[in-house]
Amino acid sequence: MITVLSGGGGGVKFLKGLAQCMDPTQIVAVVNTGDDFILHGLYISPDVDSTLYSLSDQINPETGWGQKDESWRVMGALEKLEGETWFKLGDRDLATHLYRTQRLFLGEDLAKVTSQIAKAFKVKVNILPMTCDRVSTFLQVDLDSFDSSQCKSDCLSFQEYFVKYKCNPKVTSISFETSCNPMPTHGIIEALDRSEAIIIGPSNPFLSIDPILSIKAIREKLVSYREKVIAISPIVDGKSLKGPLSKLLIELGKKSDVVSIARHLSSVASVFVIDSSDSSFRKELTDLNLAVATTNTVMDTETDKVAVAKFVMTKVLAQIGK
Amino acid sequence: MITVLSGGGGGVKFLKGLAQCMDPTQIVAVVNTGDDFILHGLYISPDVDSTLYSLSDQINPETGWGQKDESWRVMGALEKLEGETWFKLGDRDLATHLYRTQRLFLGEDLAKVTSQIAKAFKVKVNILPMTCDRVSTFLQVDLDSFDSSQCKSDCLSFQEYFVKYKCNPKVTSISFETSCNPMPTHGIIEALDRSEAIIIGPSNPFLSIDPILSIKAIREKLVSYREKVIAISPIVDGKSLKGPLSKLLIELGKKSDVVSIARHLSSVASVFVIDSSDSSFRKELTDLNLAVATTNTVMDTETDKVAVAKFVMTKVLAQIGK
Repeated sequence: MITVLSGGGGGVKFLKGLAQCMDPTQIVAVVNTGDDFILHGLYISPDVDSTLYSLSDQINPETGWGQKDESWRVMGALEKLEGETWFKLGDRDLATHLYRTQRLFLGEDLAKVTSQIAKAFKVKVNILPMTCDRVSTFLQVDLDSFDSSQCKSDCLSFQEYFVKYKCNPKVTSISFETSCNPMPTHGIIEALDRSEAIIIGPSNPFLSIDPILSIKAIREKLVSYREKVIAISPIVDGKSLKGPLSKLLIELGKKSDVVSIARHLSSVASVFVIDSSDSSFRKELTDLNLAVATTNTVMDTETDKVAVAKFVMTKVLAQIGK
Repeated sequence: MITVLSGGGGGVKFLKGLAQCMDPTQIVAVVNTGDDFILHGLYISPDVDSTLYSLSDQINPETGWGQKDESWRVMGALEKLEGETWFKLGDRDLATHLYRTQRLFLGEDLAKVTSQIAKAFKVKVNILPMTCDRVSTFLQVDLDSFDSSQCKSDCLSFQEYFVKYKCNPKVTSISFETSCNPMPTHGIIEALDRSEAIIIGPSNPFLSIDPILSIKAIREKLVSYREKVIAISPIVDGKSLKGPLSKLLIELGKKSDVVSIARHLSSVASVFVIDSSDSSFRKELTDLNLAVATTNTVMDTETDKVAVAKFVMTKVLAQIGK
């Protein structure tokens, strides 16, 4: 069994490759829900959906989110009503949100609903939202750093930052708000215990991995299992391939390089997989008490995804004696 | 100014005719919200929507609900997820529910949101939901009278009774549940005061008009203004044209005729407009202290709708000295 911690971007690409390298029923994906939010009364879980759509080959390959063969009838009519259309919801995608919201309304939890949707999409990987409680990512931002005339506060929800303001605001800090002591979804702790290796996917460590690690029981398990935790770098040649990671690193006073990522994750991971373009940082990484494995980590094609997964499942696992 | 009390069927047909006979900005439609419900997390207000769609010529003329030129992409995808598809929501229609739900979520009330949608649909009639509080119609039913294997209770919400179980259950009683003392929407009391005539549209008195009259301040106004209240019969030739009214009358121990309707409304209305086919009941109706006006009340075509409205606005208003 392999457990992968993931957001909705790079981590999902890795999962897609991994599911083609091993029995997908033996993969547990622990997915970030810090980006979940309610819009139009609908409970939307973007990273869970990207995982579902990607693993079922339904994701729109051009955007990297939403479904392929999508239509926009509802959004078109909502636009005429001058409704909120900054978060694009395709017609097929909407059905997922309607279904999830109704099931949650009837008292089922996010994990149960996710497994029902996974079944309908014929996904065999066990997708577990990190928690069925609410943990929400918020970003403290500098209001002078972007057009904030429509902004009511300098504390933005993830989707406001990411979609509405297109990552333009300068971030000063990130927090994960919760009203309770959030519990990991049932099955996560057992999966961490039983897994040969725990892989931190190449997702944004601050926005996709940290929300997962904000759940105390998960972080504690990773710390105690550090020897079998492998992190894959989301930085390639000193830059993030997509998304605001590079910009964010600078704003948070760090360098945009693999060392910053490694430093951030070195308490929970013992092996760090980096792109060949960053191999000059090997010494600095080993100084952080990390074993380093180098390969091509860019996953543009399905072949790339499988190659990275195969590399991790053979060479890296051998490196940690599995 | 004319105020019309209405549900989503016959009452709306009358409103449609009336809006073509007089300045539509001088018409106030007080619309039943007892059928409102939440499905998939969306706040759905069926009678308000039918009124909006009908008055803007957007209603599907074949079904009498939903919009014309409608598509069903979301429902199709929801069906594949085995979601709840018993209440059909077209793609264009869904935009209305998304818009309304989001605005309610932001703290606006149902009246404000309705007026915003009306503006977008270029509707000039002033559509007022009967209340911005929650009043919900429930039907106590006989579980032995229909296939109730999926039923959790013998108390059904309106939409369960009407759409899910297609009016099959035998009804033993009807109630309007509310957690508070519901207030009429702002503007209703003033409209009742200022109107030359108050018209109870040819809607189901038990399921569409009674919820409105369950609001104490509205009922009291109608009782005090009984002399200017005109009710249009929803019964033609002893039967309801559409919907469960005839069946319901029998189940509630009454006859399916205009007299039963008149008896039910005689405390709030002084004039009763009946179809020519029911003119033999004139004597029984006048015995209930009702003035009777007879015309063709069937409104299949736009011409019919205008004819009924014209009849009420000229002959019937003259009859009450307006």
